Amino acid sequence: MSSLSTGPGPTTPPPALPEGALRVVALGGIGEVGRNMTVFEFGGRLLIVDCGVLFPEDDQPGVDLILPDFRAIEDRLEDIDGLVLTHGHEDHIGAVPFLLRLVPDLKIYGSRFTNALLAAKAKEHRQRPNLIEVREGERRKVGDFDLEFFAVNHSIPDALAVAIRTPAGVVLHTGDIKLDQLPLDGRLTDLAGFSRLGDEGVDLFCVDSTNAEVPGFVMPERDIGPVLDDVIRKVDQRVIVACFASHVHRVQQVLDAATRHGRRVAFVGRSMVRNMGIAADLGLLNVPDGLLVNLDQASDLPESKVLFVSTGSQGEPLSALSRMARGEHRQISIRAGDTVVLASSMIPGNETAVFGVVNGLTRLGANVVHQGNAKVHVSGHASAGELLYLYNAVRPSNVMPVHGEWKHLRANGELAVRTGVAPENVVIAEDGVVVDLVDGKASRTGRVEVGHVYVDGLSVGDVGESTLSDRLVLGEGGFIAITVAVDTSTGRAVTRPTVSGRGFSDDPKALDAVLPMVEMELARTEAEGITDTHRIAQAVRRVVGRWVADTYRRRPMIVPTVIPV
Amino acid sequence: MSSLSTGPGPTTPPPALPEGALRVVALGGIGEVGRNMTVFEFGGRLLIVDCGVLFPEDDQPGVDLILPDFRAIEDRLEDIDGLVLTHGHEDHIGAVPFLLRLVPDLKIYGSRFTNALLAAKAKEHRQRPNLIEVREGERRKVGDFDLEFFAVNHSIPDALAVAIRTPAGVVLHTGDIKLDQLPLDGRLTDLAGFSRLGDEGVDLFCVDSTNAEVPGFVMPERDIGPVLDDVIRKVDQRVIVACFASHVHRVQQVLDAATRHGRRVAFVGRSMVRNMGIAADLGLLNVPDGLLVNLDQASDLPESKVLFVSTGSQGEPLSALSRMARGEHRQISIRAGDTVVLASSMIPGNETAVFGVVNGLTRLGANVVHQGNAKVHVSGHASAGELLYLYNAVRPSNVMPVHGEWKHLRANGELAVRTGVAPENVVIAEDGVVVDLVDGKASRTGRVEVGHVYVDGLSVGDVGESTLSDRLVLGEGGFIAITVAVDTSTGRAVTRPTVSGRGFSDDPKALDAVLPMVEMELARTEAEGITDTHRIAQAVRRVVGRWVADTYRRRPMIVPTVIPV
Repeated sequence: MSSLSTGPGPTTPPPALPEGALRVVALGGIGEVGRNMTVFEFGGRLLIVDCGVLFPEDDQPGVDLILPDFRAIEDRLEDIDGLVLTHGHEDHIGAVPFLLRLVPDLKIYGSRFTNALLAAKAKEHRQRPNLIEVREGERRKVGDFDLEFFAVNHSIPDALAVAIRTPAGVVLHTGDIKLDQLPLDGRLTDLAGFSRLGDEGVDLFCVDSTNAEVPGFVMPERDIGPVLDDVIRKVDQRVIVACFASHVHRVQQVLDAATRHGRRVAFVGRSMVRNMGIAADLGLLNVPDGLLVNLDQASDLPESKVLFVSTGSQGEPLSALSRMARGEHRQISIRAGDTVVLASSMIPGNETAVFGVVNGLTRLGANVVHQGNAKVHVSGHASAGELLYLYNAVRPSNVMPVHGEWKHLRANGELAVRTGVAPENVVIAEDGVVVDLVDGKASRTGRVEVGHVYVDGLSVGDVGESTLSDRLVLGEGGFIAITVAVDTSTGRAVTRPTVSGRGFSDDPKALDAVLPMVEMELARTEAEGITDTHRIAQAVRRVVGRWVADTYRRRPMIVPTVIPV
Repeated sequence: MSSLSTGPGPTTPPPALPEGALRVVALGGIGEVGRNMTVFEFGGRLLIVDCGVLFPEDDQPGVDLILPDFRAIEDRLEDIDGLVLTHGHEDHIGAVPFLLRLVPDLKIYGSRFTNALLAAKAKEHRQRPNLIEVREGERRKVGDFDLEFFAVNHSIPDALAVAIRTPAGVVLHTGDIKLDQLPLDGRLTDLAGFSRLGDEGVDLFCVDSTNAEVPGFVMPERDIGPVLDDVIRKVDQRVIVACFASHVHRVQQVLDAATRHGRRVAFVGRSMVRNMGIAADLGLLNVPDGLLVNLDQASDLPESKVLFVSTGSQGEPLSALSRMARGEHRQISIRAGDTVVLASSMIPGNETAVFGVVNGLTRLGANVVHQGNAKVHVSGHASAGELLYLYNAVRPSNVMPVHGEWKHLRANGELAVRTGVAPENVVIAEDGVVVDLVDGKASRTGRVEVGHVYVDGLSVGDVGESTLSDRLVLGEGGFIAITVAVDTSTGRAVTRPTVSGRGFSDDPKALDAVLPMVEMELARTEAEGITDTHRIAQAVRRVVGRWVADTYRRRPMIVPTVIPV
């Protein structure tokens, strides 16, 4: 238990940034897992690192995506010198199209694969972003920010860390990182480069916190190959492997195992087909000639000669794998003896959905192999043991844990302290908390407002907390609607009220008591001379609400409509 | 990979039960975790084992509880000889009050603690059930069923397994079970008794599947004591321990640790206070004189002299612990340096809620100890290693895995096969699948309908799939209501339509386009001579639905009301 600066931090706006100081503020990604976006400010200019999306939780129904909150930079768009993308995952690039709506000519710096994935995404938004390719080892000025890029490994190829040099000091931002010492592509995380930078002096180290609570070290990705081999060898029917559609090295190992066992491979799922096409084009995925078949060709092959690589490893209800588990997939119907491998993690919040798929497949007789019963997945994020290597290589003056919920940030900060960073130099700064680096010391100086920005269908931002709270009420209890036309000169109902409920009960007689009750109430309001439609509606809402609470102990939304005639 | 009888099983009703045969059918609890209820039939008479509830998932919004489906026995209530309760957890006793509505004089057989918990629950339902106390080692005829009870250990005291002897053969049902070899109360699972029964010959063994996928053995409950000791010793502020309100042995260890460290204890949460009162009254919980204080007394004590034992370990939003995590608890406000121990499992589906509580507490500066970072929890269910002991002791002819989802059932069946049970004698029979034991061989012979029976507020069964599907639509997208009064002789609107939306958008102008669109459509229907209110409503629904899909790419419920005048 350390003496980190704890608690949520300042609540008031920050002071003006002192001359020669550097300011850092996350508009997403700290205090949550997703929508990573960090803004660096020096000398009146801004540099952004990453711009991703967050996926909604149960209490955000109907929401498709959650964006970083751009309000803090909305008035300063012309001050932005550039956007650096550390890698191509959705939680790092997914919100770029929305930022491009504000800054269409934004200069975007990313590696080859990152830029290719972003270009494909932007195309769906009919955008052609200004993409500038950078690579590890490269040093480049972006405005007054002096950047240097370092190779890092993660669960997607071509990931980068970035050092940001300003007169206020040197920042190193890891992006998402792990330290696989035997990476499939031989591209090590550049610990030597980090050490060199550490010799120079790193004033602020922004470090991936995702797995800070997990002790030890992540197993090398390549150790999964023999496990896949073992699984496939024993099967004489179909094999279906589900994994993330951007996990090129995982897919590579599946392709290699398929090749060794004489199976052709079909990709299933739009994003899998698209991303693996890009990876193959860029030489990041090695596909032997003639290995790939399409789904129709696959159905013509003997079952022992085919392997499917599919999306849906998170139990997404519309994915191919979920449809197979429900017995609803058009081309692939699961039979006893088929084998399904979930070569993937389980993202917190998806457990129920993933277990639903596992149970559905098991019920149909499939053997399901997953990380719970075989080593078919390793994480893309450094565990505690690896983070210690990072801290010891970099020897930072100040540490700012990024990418994670509070428990991850705190655990990461405590690791920094154990390597010798002074507890008061570890700044835990959730979204919106402003960190200023002044004379080599980082501290929390204020807070800007950072809320949730919801994308629902084509619109951004019009769905807010009030709409979500209505959705939660409607989702829990449905509604009861009462409609009546009233003569506003007399307050007299000129129609019989109509009563209807949705999401309330399957029983057609459930609301039979409502009509007489409403008619009695309307007689009362008329007798009292009430002619205001709003007051009449309130009276109806009150009697119906009280009745439903007493009779059913439920709280549907009561929706009275009084039409004036 | 074994050759168990796989696939969901028969779809047609079972044949008549042959003379001298035994029938088994689960009305809940197989293919899911919860609402355990198994019905045994012999010679026209019925014996029920357990009658629990299931807690709803995300796609069952607004539902409070899910009951076993009683339809299969509804016409045969007078054939029921009795209900045996294996232990007092909600998923084994929670639905008893609903069965008692059908059979008020039902004879219920349970251990002392089980019956005490049921009596307390029944009191809330204003019921006084006919409770008959049984204990381990006891043999008792219930109708024609010859029962024998065996001690088992689990995460609640006084749990029982039950052997059911009929002329068709001997059944052994484990209830929930583990094999703690050093139980806190010295009450071992009666493996010796099981072996003796095995010598006699067990024809059908119904076995708890919950942890069949987990290799190895569950650590003894008593090993948690020293861990709690270690945690509490280092803290000089408040300690809050959250665990299940029925886990008497866990609470006992917390009380013992508090005593050793000179802390007084306050129970927080209604069910914790109630259950620990019952346990203490029955001598199952040992509470030193003067140890307990109430919440007010606790606030007057120095922070280093108090410990709270609280409910809320599953992140229940209304629980005391959740309120503390949100900073909303009246008496306990968390400060940096407080320690919270979650001495509990994380039930699948509750991950997001539990992590939300952990993050909230961490954000406020508390140190949170949980099973992810300390050995503060052990499971109440036998792991694979223990299940092997059970199979080897009992040496059953036929095995029927119970209590679990498909993946658990299958894993359990495979363990049975590894101990020598013939694969064709392992019957995986989800809810409703009828298993007949005929001439010593168990097989799946048919299926009775078993659906989800929902409790929402005071009503049982009126909320069904159609209401839930409406709730899901409303919860995702809200609704748009359009109301107009129409003269049914001419088809002419006699009011301007009213348009309102809830759960659709925070933007007050979002629906501005709807009114003119509806008026144009009403003009069209009038011009076409349409006077039928239903057809007019359909036309309105169509244009508004198309508009909202095109404009917003959303699917709110469209609710047109045409009032005839």
